[in-house]
Amino acid sequence: MTLAAYYTGGGTIEVGETVAGAPAAGHVLVSVSFTGICGTDLHILHGHMDHRVRRPGVIGHEMSGRVVALGDGVDGWSVGDAVTVMPLSWCGRCPACLAGHEHICQNLDFIGIDSTGSMQNRWNVPAEVLVALPDGLSLRDAALVEPTAVAVHDVGRAALAPGERAVVVGGGPVGLLIALVARARGAEVVVAEVDGFRREVADRLGVTAVDPLATDLEKYVASWSRGAGAAVAFEVSGTQPGLTAAMTTLAARGRLVVVGIHAEARQVDLHRIFWRELTMVGARVYRRDDFEEAVRLLDSGVVPADVLISAVEPLATAERAFARLAAGDGVMKVLVDCREGT
Amino acid sequence: MTLAAYYTGGGTIEVGETVAGAPAAGHVLVSVSFTGICGTDLHILHGHMDHRVRRPGVIGHEMSGRVVALGDGVDGWSVGDAVTVMPLSWCGRCPACLAGHEHICQNLDFIGIDSTGSMQNRWNVPAEVLVALPDGLSLRDAALVEPTAVAVHDVGRAALAPGERAVVVGGGPVGLLIALVARARGAEVVVAEVDGFRREVADRLGVTAVDPLATDLEKYVASWSRGAGAAVAFEVSGTQPGLTAAMTTLAARGRLVVVGIHAEARQVDLHRIFWRELTMVGARVYRRDDFEEAVRLLDSGVVPADVLISAVEPLATAERAFARLAAGDGVMKVLVDCREGT
Repeated sequence: MTLAAYYTGGGTIEVGETVAGAPAAGHVLVSVSFTGICGTDLHILHGHMDHRVRRPGVIGHEMSGRVVALGDGVDGWSVGDAVTVMPLSWCGRCPACLAGHEHICQNLDFIGIDSTGSMQNRWNVPAEVLVALPDGLSLRDAALVEPTAVAVHDVGRAALAPGERAVVVGGGPVGLLIALVARARGAEVVVAEVDGFRREVADRLGVTAVDPLATDLEKYVASWSRGAGAAVAFEVSGTQPGLTAAMTTLAARGRLVVVGIHAEARQVDLHRIFWRELTMVGARVYRRDDFEEAVRLLDSGVVPADVLISAVEPLATAERAFARLAAGDGVMKVLVDCREGT
Repeated sequence: MTLAAYYTGGGTIEVGETVAGAPAAGHVLVSVSFTGICGTDLHILHGHMDHRVRRPGVIGHEMSGRVVALGDGVDGWSVGDAVTVMPLSWCGRCPACLAGHEHICQNLDFIGIDSTGSMQNRWNVPAEVLVALPDGLSLRDAALVEPTAVAVHDVGRAALAPGERAVVVGGGPVGLLIALVARARGAEVVVAEVDGFRREVADRLGVTAVDPLATDLEKYVASWSRGAGAAVAFEVSGTQPGLTAAMTTLAARGRLVVVGIHAEARQVDLHRIFWRELTMVGARVYRRDDFEEAVRLLDSGVVPADVLISAVEPLATAERAFARLAAGDGVMKVLVDCREGT
């Protein structure tokens, strides 16, 4: 018997026993080391995604672990391999897949949301979602590969060039990871974030962070860019004020990347998009090359995982990890230690 | 003495006498043949742009004519040359200019709006705004070069590829010109337009036009594209319903080009932009290569000006041209015949 953290609906996580069966053909059984909790997991906890999530169901999709058993027909992997998972399974037949955009497949199975996730000791997954981890990267830090891949994808969608100025509106884990990836690409970066603790974390990362409630972001960026505006703004806040502020920072032909989840329609100044020939571009999840780049960025220390990981809770008390993140006070990334016996 | 049509404020156009002086150094005196009236001119007439337009002032920026005199230091032009004007004058020093985006200069002088326009017999302009017209292109048809250049720029901003499907929301002159340019690039095109006369003109151009009040545009495009959606949508209506409809038509990674003027902030479904990784891109005026391409498209007959020109009014009764366009009934493009003595 092994343990799993179940979302049982209505704001509740319950840890219970389960049996991880032998892997089916083409599948791999992974001993999970760590699972990170992201904003989407919190949305699930709060019942906002019950139309997609099974109850009781195991969620979690930011993970690291080791291969413990191979199903029939699995090649290229060995027991003991350190791995993470790119948690997307696409249909291969819809118009998005046929156009080569499998990551936004119209029938996408996001593993850990639409199907069983990694917040358990042992997890069966299709072999094709595995991504190899290098020896030197700790499995704790490797739990940040998935959100880092999100940031790599976002920066890629911005087509950010060295020397360009970028504003990141929203300094949570994804916002700060975007700032780190953008800086690694040679951009100059400023983060706008209302929360003091998050600005402190930015400071520890050597990333400039301003409080948009205390500083007029448009004027700040105009001054910083000598009147030009920023080449790129990343909207990671998911809020109307964040979106509005992001738009005001952009230079002629500037690009706004929509990263945050906007559950409601937003007011957008289309005349400004027209007048300055701005581009607004959506960025969702990642592709395999984004994942592989994320592994390299963590392995090389460009993304210092230690600064971003605020707490690690054992699987047996996983509900405390959710509670700490939901309280939001003084935590950035919270991991659940999913190793057996913890 | 020559004639000019003056905007005198408050919905009024008055034709009066003027004296066209000899061209200053670097300038050229043009005998104007035709001047088209566009939506922006109507906005000026209705007083919406009084913060930019001098009163009394001569407006008009869609024109054709012939060189009649050269100022000192003008090379490369001869008296009698058929010309049109690309009516933009940029500062060359602002961040947009320095970044190579002179056409959206932060201090742009749009000639005919911010400074004196072409709705007069004779017009002095800087030599650098002239664009040569070929012998075979009638000066009447050449009055459509400027709006055609807008369409070329819009299609260029969409990065439209052969075989892609494009939806044009709004079937006025610019919308239909976009449809023609997109078709010439090898795209399959549908125009959505509520006005029956405009749909008739589309029909005469061989462009499919649907009434979005009678046909569900999202379903229509889904069926047309076998479930994929359109690669590109051009928002030319300037309305909230047009924008909303345009967004619903787009395929994964589809591009929405913002062409229409949206005077108010609009409700935009950012979650859809995120989910389908859509791009929204602003497109304003044109660059010189767009203008030169527009000349070729009119000269070759790809853009059949005759179908788009609904009426030609003499300069002496220019106010009637504005009235016909403002009434909006059964007219597409209206020209003012600015030749001396008409």
